[in-house]
Order: sequence, then C-alpha cells, then structure tokens
Amino acid sequence: MLNQIRIVLVNTTHPGNIGGTARAMKNMGLSELVLVEPKRFPDPEANARSSRADDILEQAKVVATLEDAVADCQLVVGTSARQRHLSWPLISPRKMTALVQDNLQKQPDMKIALVFGREDRGLTNEELALCHYHVHIPTDETFSSLNVGAAVQVLAYELRVAWLEQQEQVAGDWQDDWDTEWASGEDVERFYQHLEQTLLNIDFYKPENTQQLMPKLRRLYQRARLDKVELNILRGILTATQKKVDKVDK
Amino acid sequence: MLNQIRIVLVNTTHPGNIGGTARAMKNMGLSELVLVEPKRFPDPEANARSSRADDILEQAKVVATLEDAVADCQLVVGTSARQRHLSWPLISPRKMTALVQDNLQKQPDMKIALVFGREDRGLTNEELALCHYHVHIPTDETFSSLNVGAAVQVLAYELRVAWLEQQEQVAGDWQDDWDTEWASGEDVERFYQHLEQTLLNIDFYKPENTQQLMPKLRRLYQRARLDKVELNILRGILTATQKKVDKVDK
Repeated sequence: MLNQIRIVLVNTTHPGNIGGTARAMKNMGLSELVLVEPKRFPDPEANARSSRADDILEQAKVVATLEDAVADCQLVVGTSARQRHLSWPLISPRKMTALVQDNLQKQPDMKIALVFGREDRGLTNEELALCHYHVHIPTDETFSSLNVGAAVQVLAYELRVAWLEQQEQVAGDWQDDWDTEWASGEDVERFYQHLEQTLLNIDFYKPENTQQLMPKLRRLYQRARLDKVELNILRGILTATQKKVDKVDK
Repeated sequence: MLNQIRIVLVNTTHPGNIGGTARAMKNMGLSELVLVEPKRFPDPEANARSSRADDILEQAKVVATLEDAVADCQLVVGTSARQRHLSWPLISPRKMTALVQDNLQKQPDMKIALVFGREDRGLTNEELALCHYHVHIPTDETFSSLNVGAAVQVLAYELRVAWLEQQEQVAGDWQDDWDTEWASGEDVERFYQHLEQTLLNIDFYKPENTQQLMPKLRRLYQRARLDKVELNILRGILTATQKKVDKVDK
C-alpha cells in the first residue's frame, strides 16, 4: 500500500519544506516524491531539513507540470485549504485513507498521488480539476494555513495508521506487552490480608470507623494490576513496617 | 477541550522547532505552550517558523524543570520514540485522544499536558516517570526519529479531529466513570517524597542496594493514577507508620 502512494509538491518555494516533506514521508514509510517546478532544488537546506532522508530527495523526480506528475496515476487526491468557488467532493484525511484502501482492494496495482500546493496559495482551480478528490485537513478557521511539510505529515500518518491496522500490527492493549509477569489472584489476596493486618498494627485502620478504607485500597491496586515484582516490593514494605512496629508493641 | 491541553517542550535545541510547534498548535486550535529550559528562546527563527503564530510564542511560559511544567496537571502524557528498558503503558495517538476525552468527561476542568522531548534523544527515563501514559507515534522502524514539530502536529491533529467529532455527536461510549477527582501532579510528587522518607525510616529502602525500588513504585502508582481520596489514604498510612516508628527510634 505505502509504496504505491506518491507525494507530489507543486511549485514549492522553500527548499526546507521539501526536506521536511522527505523526512515526514520516510518516518511514515512513504518513499516516492515528485516535485513540480520547485523554486530551488536540489538545495542544501532541503537536505538539512530532511534529517538523513536524503535518499528520498535523491530519488525525487522533477517535472514541469502537474499533468506530468500524475500521468500514470489512477487515483489523484489534491489538498485544499478551503472551500473553492466551485465546490468539489471534499473529504477528511480519514475518509481519504479509507478511499485509498478501498481502491487498492479493487485494483491492487493502482498508483495513487497526493498533491500539495504552494506555500502561499495552495493549488489553482485548474490543478484541483486534475484531482479526483479534494482532501481537507480540519484546521482552525482563524488560522488555516498549514505548513506543507505538516500537511504531508498528517496525511502520511493517517495512511500509515490505516496500513498498520490492516497489517494488524498496531499495538493493542498495552498490558499485553508488560515486562514482568502479573501477580496471581491468590497472591494479591494474601497481600490485601497482609496490608490489612499491618494497617491495624500501625493503628491506622479501625474497622468500626473506616469501612471504606480496605475497599478503596483494593480498588486502587486492582486498577493498577500488580505485577510479581511490585507485589514482592509491597509485601517487603509491610514486613519491614511490622518488624519495626513489633519493637514498640513488645 | 482544546484549551485545557498544554504542550510542553523539553530542552528544545532549535528555535525553528519551537516556531513549528507554535504554528502546528495554532492550526489545530491549541494555544498553551510551556518550554522547559529551551536552548535559545525567544529567537527570531522561532517567530519566522511560527508563520504568524507569534501570539502563542509570546504567551509561552519558560520554566526550569518538567516538574514545574506539569505541577498543576492531572493528566500527563509523554511522547516516547521507543520502548524503554522499564516499559510503561504505551498507547497510540488515537487511544491517547480517547483517553483525553474520557478524562475530560469525568472531570471537565482537568488540565492536561502533552510532553515532547529533545530533538536528539527525547525524554529521559526520569522525565517519562513523571507521565501517566506514554504515547508512541507509529513511525517506520528504520527511520523513527520524528521532528518535534511534526510530532506535535500529529497529536494536535488527532485531538482536533476527536474534538470536531465530539461537537457532532456528544454521546461517549466509555463506561467506567470515575467517582473522585484525580490528584494533582504536585500532590503526587509530595506523596513520593513522603513514601521514600518512610521507607528509609522503616529500614526498607537502602538507596545504594535498591536503585530500582523508587522507579518501580512510581511506575505502579502512576499507572494506577491516584485520585484525591486514595492519595489521602496513602499519606495517612505513611504518617501513621512514621508515628509508630518514631517511638522505636527515640
């Protein structure tokens, strides 16, 4: 999926944005970059901002028009900051991702282009007309101009998450990859008994006054779910407390 | 929701990244930025990269430590590029967003911090230990170092999308309502200090032998996330223990 997605930047002014785009792409597992008439490229600033994603810059293709950039693509999605005079199907990044997946399911060898416009005024109406869909990243209406690298980052991230979900590689419940074995139910029960006894010994727990104490403590530790090492530490603390206290009570 | 979320950058080296962060925040409707010991700030490069998000930079607070930055927050989420030696609850950005919404539903005035580390090596283990959750943006394993502004962009985008969806449908599907307010970061820190002192008093904690003890206990209680009543109970237990122990040591 990810290797069938091409990022196209149109008339980018600042080479730093090309570098930022390359870095965002590589972070998210995309690799194919096409530049339509960039102002300055190649440029050391692009390499600096790419932060070792130089390979993407080196392999980037420079072309003269958007038509050239998307000529071999079956699905072209343009980014649009705002509603245009002539409105088009405007979709969210998440919807775009579903659309990409849907398309690839129907035609697995499909080539897909995501097109990003100029820093100051985006894509022209003519360029948007070359796209099948327009995706809109939901920015605050009072400050809607997104940096082009940031826009690439958001869409590439959405695509990667969808791809990972598809691979079923997204980390599920964190408790599944805990580094220590969980304590058993009976060991935890023994800890609660030990805790109750110790709290009696230090005169903190007075069953007639504080009925809610043990349930509250139980709820706290159940919520955390104790692992074996933690249980041993807590038992050790109780034992040390009792040892000290025994000296007083004797 | 969005105005209760604070972005915290720790020891940022390049002012351009602070500017990029401000821009990403403003694009997504976030406004509160706190900088922990930035290398260079204020700096014209930050303003240039912010692209007219100067107001966020002007209102940014500079503090000396991460503790200061999150002292009044009840939920602290740190960004983590990789699995640490001592693993913590590691969640996806989307799960983090659900968590934030869930928390705000239960405690509408909650203050939330998202913490981002240094460009070259992220957050230290000590800093990560101040967080309740660690969020991991799913990058390609072969190129996983995300630009800090890009990381802010991704998380802020996820939060905004969730916020927009919430505007449309107010119904939440999280069931496990919490009945008590969460404890603040500074109160929990005081508890850790009290706990450490008490463990010294009962001769359980010997700093030279058991370096892993305090981090493990901290991890346990951060994972559980203490509410105010629980915190009072635990502090009460420590006080009662010390009272008993004082009699021995006199």
